[in-house]
Amino acid sequence: MKKLLNDPRSVVQEAVAGFGAAHPGVVTVSQDPLFITRAEPPRTGKVALVSGGGSGHEPLHGGFVGYGMLDAAVPGPVFTSPTPDPIAAATQAVDQGAGVLHIVKNYTGDVLNFETAADLADAEGIAVRSVLVSDDVAVRDSLYTAGRRGVAGTVFVEKIAGAAAERGDDLDGVAAIATRVAERTRSMGVALRPCIVPHSGEPSFELDDDEVEIGIGIHGEPGRERIGIEPADRIIDRLLGPILDDLPFESGDRVVALVNGMGGTPSMELYIAYRRVADVLAGRGIEVARTLVGDYVTSLEMQGLSLSLLQLDDELLELWDAPVQTVALRWGR
Amino acid sequence: MKKLLNDPRSVVQEAVAGFGAAHPGVVTVSQDPLFITRAEPPRTGKVALVSGGGSGHEPLHGGFVGYGMLDAAVPGPVFTSPTPDPIAAATQAVDQGAGVLHIVKNYTGDVLNFETAADLADAEGIAVRSVLVSDDVAVRDSLYTAGRRGVAGTVFVEKIAGAAAERGDDLDGVAAIATRVAERTRSMGVALRPCIVPHSGEPSFELDDDEVEIGIGIHGEPGRERIGIEPADRIIDRLLGPILDDLPFESGDRVVALVNGMGGTPSMELYIAYRRVADVLAGRGIEVARTLVGDYVTSLEMQGLSLSLLQLDDELLELWDAPVQTVALRWGR
Repeated sequence: MKKLLNDPRSVVQEAVAGFGAAHPGVVTVSQDPLFITRAEPPRTGKVALVSGGGSGHEPLHGGFVGYGMLDAAVPGPVFTSPTPDPIAAATQAVDQGAGVLHIVKNYTGDVLNFETAADLADAEGIAVRSVLVSDDVAVRDSLYTAGRRGVAGTVFVEKIAGAAAERGDDLDGVAAIATRVAERTRSMGVALRPCIVPHSGEPSFELDDDEVEIGIGIHGEPGRERIGIEPADRIIDRLLGPILDDLPFESGDRVVALVNGMGGTPSMELYIAYRRVADVLAGRGIEVARTLVGDYVTSLEMQGLSLSLLQLDDELLELWDAPVQTVALRWGR
Repeated sequence: MKKLLNDPRSVVQEAVAGFGAAHPGVVTVSQDPLFITRAEPPRTGKVALVSGGGSGHEPLHGGFVGYGMLDAAVPGPVFTSPTPDPIAAATQAVDQGAGVLHIVKNYTGDVLNFETAADLADAEGIAVRSVLVSDDVAVRDSLYTAGRRGVAGTVFVEKIAGAAAERGDDLDGVAAIATRVAERTRSMGVALRPCIVPHSGEPSFELDDDEVEIGIGIHGEPGRERIGIEPADRIIDRLLGPILDDLPFESGDRVVALVNGMGGTPSMELYIAYRRVADVLAGRGIEVARTLVGDYVTSLEMQGLSLSLLQLDDELLELWDAPVQTVALRWGR
């Protein structure tokens, strides 16, 4: 296995330590139990937001800790849910007396462990609400998941719920906004090449030299189909069609569009993809109000990308535009 | 060749079109001749900054166009210098009457074509000065280059010279600041896996399954040596040693540290690398005042990273911290 690491068993601890050392003005790292919080605590009385999940999807979630977004992120082992204890510890660490919202990607391990952590926090007198993100339209009931998987649309939920909490919404209000974003978000991805998971040293899946997998999951779980490589525009159409049909998105809608790199995809290919996304949406009468193009929810060095769309309303757009100061998203302040 | 593209001959045009469509508030794209300028022109009388070079290194240079940094970027074909005409056209487009600084990475093609473009602009009555960036300590006189190569330290030059221009320095002043940054910057890289250049469909170089190349160039040019894969900390030491010895950086120095991903490197590995950089510099009594970790100067999907250090003084730190609003760097405003 050819990777820049010291010991496959300590990649997450070392990477999180490096993350804390690199961004001391934004985040603070607790090594045991392992979680990441804001360097500057929020104002007293703010609803706190906690997310987490298996590592290997960086910048999700640690890169989204900071003003206007998460209060804490809990990284598990690579592609493996964190246990309840660090989630409960992070929840307790960031509670400001107004309760804590857990933002959970829909994978069986994450769901169970966040539930147990919520029970532990409840026993300490902390009010916890949860929102599940299940934005992936590719498949229903797959490896690791009952129902749809939570993928890159999680960024929309964390950003907008974070802005609502910063605005002063109470726990029920922040949970309602987060749920609204999750309900209006749809995603789908394609992979060209797998990643290699450090502790196994093995590729996350196998693909032939001329094959791509449509509807891939962020851990390399099977998607809808394997097809021969096609021109980028046709592949984008294969992702965008099911996304648009599912909600559905309709003429007159305004959206946030995310072209998300999976870690090993050249920037150039993401922008070639966005060019097609913009053309197709314009042709359907859908206005792209805001755009993100880059690596936001990765799968180590996997090659491929996902598309996510969020159907906006005026309030969601205002919250999207609200200031955010994290390592991976930063604007307006 | 398994890549997300439509036609290998139009990858740059399509990617730049997508870039313009994705970030209309920050950049404007001219397709023929091909260059990228700010969406909002700077104030009259500001010295303008133009950079450019072969494509495939994104976000360099288009991602650094915007307030506080570049006025224009000129993308050539993949790994190939742009011709003088678009450079001259971009120079003319952004001149505000105070002259234009060309920031040029030291490759023979770039040097010649920027020189010719400067002559063309001069014939139109535009004052042009140039600064060469040659921060790579790995090799002297390599493929494509007489003298040292210009690599990721270019980001330091573009950011700080951009802030000096925004502050109101005249052309000589901005050129002097840019030169000072270039003289105080040192870099070196390592590659684990090559990229595939779209128009050839071939890997940029070959490496065995257990080999890495120390001192790699950003086009895959040969470095200092090929060695078997080692723990990340030892590889980082092999890069950091020559960087520190070259200037030299000494106890009491303050630096900006950049751990730059080459496009296909997982975020996790970049932070494992930064952890070692921070430890080594602390041990040498060198203070890391500011840090960047991420993909800033890539080589398509090449796997590997480079380290860059800039030796700061008070003025350079102040200019580094000055507001910047580009697609790839954004803070303070």
